[in-house]
Amino acid sequence: MTIEAWEKVAADKVAAREALIPAEWRITVPKGLNVIDVPRTCGLLSPAELKITETPAVELIAQMTKGALTSVEVTTAFSKRSAIAHQLTNCLTEIFYTEALKAAAEIDAEFTKTGKSAGALHGLPISLKDNVNVSGLDSTTGFISYANKPATDAEEADLVHTIKNAGGILFCKTNVPTGMLMAETYNNVWGYTSNPYNTEYGCGGSSGGEGSLLAQRGSPLGVGTDIGGSVRMPAASNGIFGLKPAGGRLSSLGLRAGLPGQEAIKSVSGPMSQDLSALELYCKTILDAAPWERDPNVFNIPWREITLPEKLCFGILMDDGIVKPTPAVTRVLLETKAALEAQGHTVIEWTPYDAPAGNQLLMRFLMGDGGFKMRAQVREGDIPEPWPQALEPFEQLYAMFKDKPPTVGGLWDLQIQRVTYLRKLLEGWYATKDLSGTGRPMDGVISPVTAFPSCPRHTFKHAGYTALWNLADQTACTFPAGFANKNDVKPDEQEFRNAEEKDIWEQYDADRVDGMPVGLQVIVTRHQEELSLKLAGVAFEALKEYRK
Amino acid sequence: MTIEAWEKVAADKVAAREALIPAEWRITVPKGLNVIDVPRTCGLLSPAELKITETPAVELIAQMTKGALTSVEVTTAFSKRSAIAHQLTNCLTEIFYTEALKAAAEIDAEFTKTGKSAGALHGLPISLKDNVNVSGLDSTTGFISYANKPATDAEEADLVHTIKNAGGILFCKTNVPTGMLMAETYNNVWGYTSNPYNTEYGCGGSSGGEGSLLAQRGSPLGVGTDIGGSVRMPAASNGIFGLKPAGGRLSSLGLRAGLPGQEAIKSVSGPMSQDLSALELYCKTILDAAPWERDPNVFNIPWREITLPEKLCFGILMDDGIVKPTPAVTRVLLETKAALEAQGHTVIEWTPYDAPAGNQLLMRFLMGDGGFKMRAQVREGDIPEPWPQALEPFEQLYAMFKDKPPTVGGLWDLQIQRVTYLRKLLEGWYATKDLSGTGRPMDGVISPVTAFPSCPRHTFKHAGYTALWNLADQTACTFPAGFANKNDVKPDEQEFRNAEEKDIWEQYDADRVDGMPVGLQVIVTRHQEELSLKLAGVAFEALKEYRK
Repeated sequence: MTIEAWEKVAADKVAAREALIPAEWRITVPKGLNVIDVPRTCGLLSPAELKITETPAVELIAQMTKGALTSVEVTTAFSKRSAIAHQLTNCLTEIFYTEALKAAAEIDAEFTKTGKSAGALHGLPISLKDNVNVSGLDSTTGFISYANKPATDAEEADLVHTIKNAGGILFCKTNVPTGMLMAETYNNVWGYTSNPYNTEYGCGGSSGGEGSLLAQRGSPLGVGTDIGGSVRMPAASNGIFGLKPAGGRLSSLGLRAGLPGQEAIKSVSGPMSQDLSALELYCKTILDAAPWERDPNVFNIPWREITLPEKLCFGILMDDGIVKPTPAVTRVLLETKAALEAQGHTVIEWTPYDAPAGNQLLMRFLMGDGGFKMRAQVREGDIPEPWPQALEPFEQLYAMFKDKPPTVGGLWDLQIQRVTYLRKLLEGWYATKDLSGTGRPMDGVISPVTAFPSCPRHTFKHAGYTALWNLADQTACTFPAGFANKNDVKPDEQEFRNAEEKDIWEQYDADRVDGMPVGLQVIVTRHQEELSLKLAGVAFEALKEYRK
Repeated sequence: MTIEAWEKVAADKVAAREALIPAEWRITVPKGLNVIDVPRTCGLLSPAELKITETPAVELIAQMTKGALTSVEVTTAFSKRSAIAHQLTNCLTEIFYTEALKAAAEIDAEFTKTGKSAGALHGLPISLKDNVNVSGLDSTTGFISYANKPATDAEEADLVHTIKNAGGILFCKTNVPTGMLMAETYNNVWGYTSNPYNTEYGCGGSSGGEGSLLAQRGSPLGVGTDIGGSVRMPAASNGIFGLKPAGGRLSSLGLRAGLPGQEAIKSVSGPMSQDLSALELYCKTILDAAPWERDPNVFNIPWREITLPEKLCFGILMDDGIVKPTPAVTRVLLETKAALEAQGHTVIEWTPYDAPAGNQLLMRFLMGDGGFKMRAQVREGDIPEPWPQALEPFEQLYAMFKDKPPTVGGLWDLQIQRVTYLRKLLEGWYATKDLSGTGRPMDGVISPVTAFPSCPRHTFKHAGYTALWNLADQTACTFPAGFANKNDVKPDEQEFRNAEEKDIWEQYDADRVDGMPVGLQVIVTRHQEELSLKLAGVAFEALKEYRK
């Protein structure tokens, strides 16, 4: 058996990564599929480090800026915990603990000298999805062909500058599926990242490494990106918060795209965390740095403080007409409805206009070039690699179009179809003015993120619950809404509307998903990021109250 | 000599239009190239009608809503004056005076009954560029193939609903160049629209009919569109104000596009008028109707009242490096600089990054489909027509690409190039922070709109002063800045940097442009429409003061 060139590249990258985890941070990985408690139980973290890593980002910063904690202490704790998380689920790509600790020491020294905060993120460790360019580090995004091609200073992401300028400490990057177009996280460079609640299950994607790491509190705040659900799916299946802003709000400048130059569907960056307050902190910090002064794709919409009306109206999406959510998700949806009603809010059932048509349109945009760009990156680099399983359709797409590539005229036609579709979608949204009882249309829509809590490796299907809102460029925030349990069983007999629904329901196993997180999203209108964060908080707190 | 099918269609459309001008509104067109005073001197308008048509829109509305004027009086006056204007410069396409007067009578009757205003545009006649769909009327946009295909109710423009709901009275549509991609206004349906200051000269384009009509006060407020300078060029060459908003601010839903489905360069709609206050009124009215609730391409950015800082810093663009402005334009630029400085503002010379590269990019986007769509509309409709002269390059473009149409992948590459270019452009803009003396970057850039006051028929060249800001999607407002005069002469000897510059300067004739308007634009950052209107007012008032 010969080792192929691509395998050698991958093996070297993996070996280099593993070498960056100090021997004294190595743990013995215990048996059992649910490893979520291992960081707490493995004995590597001191009680102080456990406490640090289970404290919200906002509180950590407050403590550091009053001198109760140092950035070195906090960065050490998260570095150690991220190393544990990585050993459990393979969630990291680039590791730079040494540089992080050096930066933390500098922050501490300056603070000792001046007593002044270094900025809104003073001393806080922050993890980044692998596609965020950091000078001197690779952004392979899972492609062999991008290995060992570190980003230059000029290529560094705008959000990296902003984080550093605000006193944040970058310490690791996290795994993605090749090209960031799959909802499970695996590639030929780094392998498969699993879900810490069940390592036979996926952690979602494409910001799956973030999801898996943050679930284990290996980072207090991470940055992901979303073009079809890539922040929201890993947030949901790992029980954390994640924001998908609308296009033009937060910067994606200096982030490697899976489909470079594709602009019809915006690839947006957004924060992910166990703590909702960290998402707000991140958005404020980024917007306070006026990214529109440097990034031509960002609009000048500063952070706006908002106050919610007392009585809200939520839409709730119980079934998109394509794949009915599996029992655990439906139960959690109903609990969320009851919890919101218990707080005095109105919840009305709402279904978006013709979701199949919307999903079809999104796919046509993302595959819009006929698969040329994706194929070039996988198969035509210096060192070609085999297709990762879920990307194989791109080869067929390419075969179909290679002699007659999709035309610009065809794209223009597709864009006309999108406007026609989105007018209907908006019409349905604003028609709720007459149903809400508030004089406003519904304030947000509570929706599944995926039809299941998570899925066994290599079985992901149906990104429709998230992707529709990328087509519409609407804002959505995922929140942890509960956990699946073994009583969320399927009926004995069922009829299915299509093969996708049948596969998902046949795959669903209440025993296997027992204890896995179920996340939901709250969707709002475009550019209402402040509102989406507040509404996610309302739903999250209502559920806490409801379950007391 | 046989009459071709397309000629018959055009002749019938023209005959039907002319039949809509009452015989008693016919004038004898006087000899002489400058007809700007004819509406005032021809004797058709009563003193009261002259006064009405020379009163700003905002004041007319105030008078109507206190009962001092009726909408029928105002609508009659503007209908008559528009009919005169049309006989002088061929500026109208669809005429619907009868319907307008009926709507005006209804507004008046309701006002008499209730004493209440019908809305922000109570009783005000408003003209529309030909591409704005009005139910029951054609939007030929100069194409033979769209003649006699009236818009349906469902196709009516969102801004038409808003205007009607606010009490506005639509009364005519105005001429455009075929497909709205030329800077002079002529087509095979309606013929050539000329400049009322010199009928041998163009009125700009593509909103040229509006420009020519508004210059003659044949309408108090019109709506144009801009994809490369189409509001600003006719505004400048006709001595009026015109706003090109950024994409996503005002609605273009239900407007016929020259390149349907092309979205990389936004085709935006904006108001044009003799009076700056009418532009603000229009923007407020449109935004108060929340177009983002219906138009998926509009962002939720309500109208914002702003107050200017006392001391402003303007950039001034004296030469884009491609075509140096001709003497009349340069003199007016220098006067504007002096006028602003006399008001205590700072004016710094500023040149955008690599304007040739930016202009080249814009052209590549607009011709991005290889000319297929344009050719289909001109040559492949039910009734093919010959290419209008300035569109002939589309035939060559098509010939080049017909067997190998431009690909989506190629467009993605172009979009990458644009981001790279625009980063540099922004960098140059914000670098003025260090030069402005205000702590801010320059507040706006005063720039030529075209290199000349206007040009003789069929000689237009160089849209670069406007088009760059469509590529960047920045906001700009044109203001009347003065008049050319016969002393604005060329030097005896000159060197030219390129053929375009040579042609323009050789064409320039101080005697022939004597008395023609020179407009400038003030460019601001994206979505700062409120600021652009205020800055246009500052420059306009400063010039008035300076010339006292």
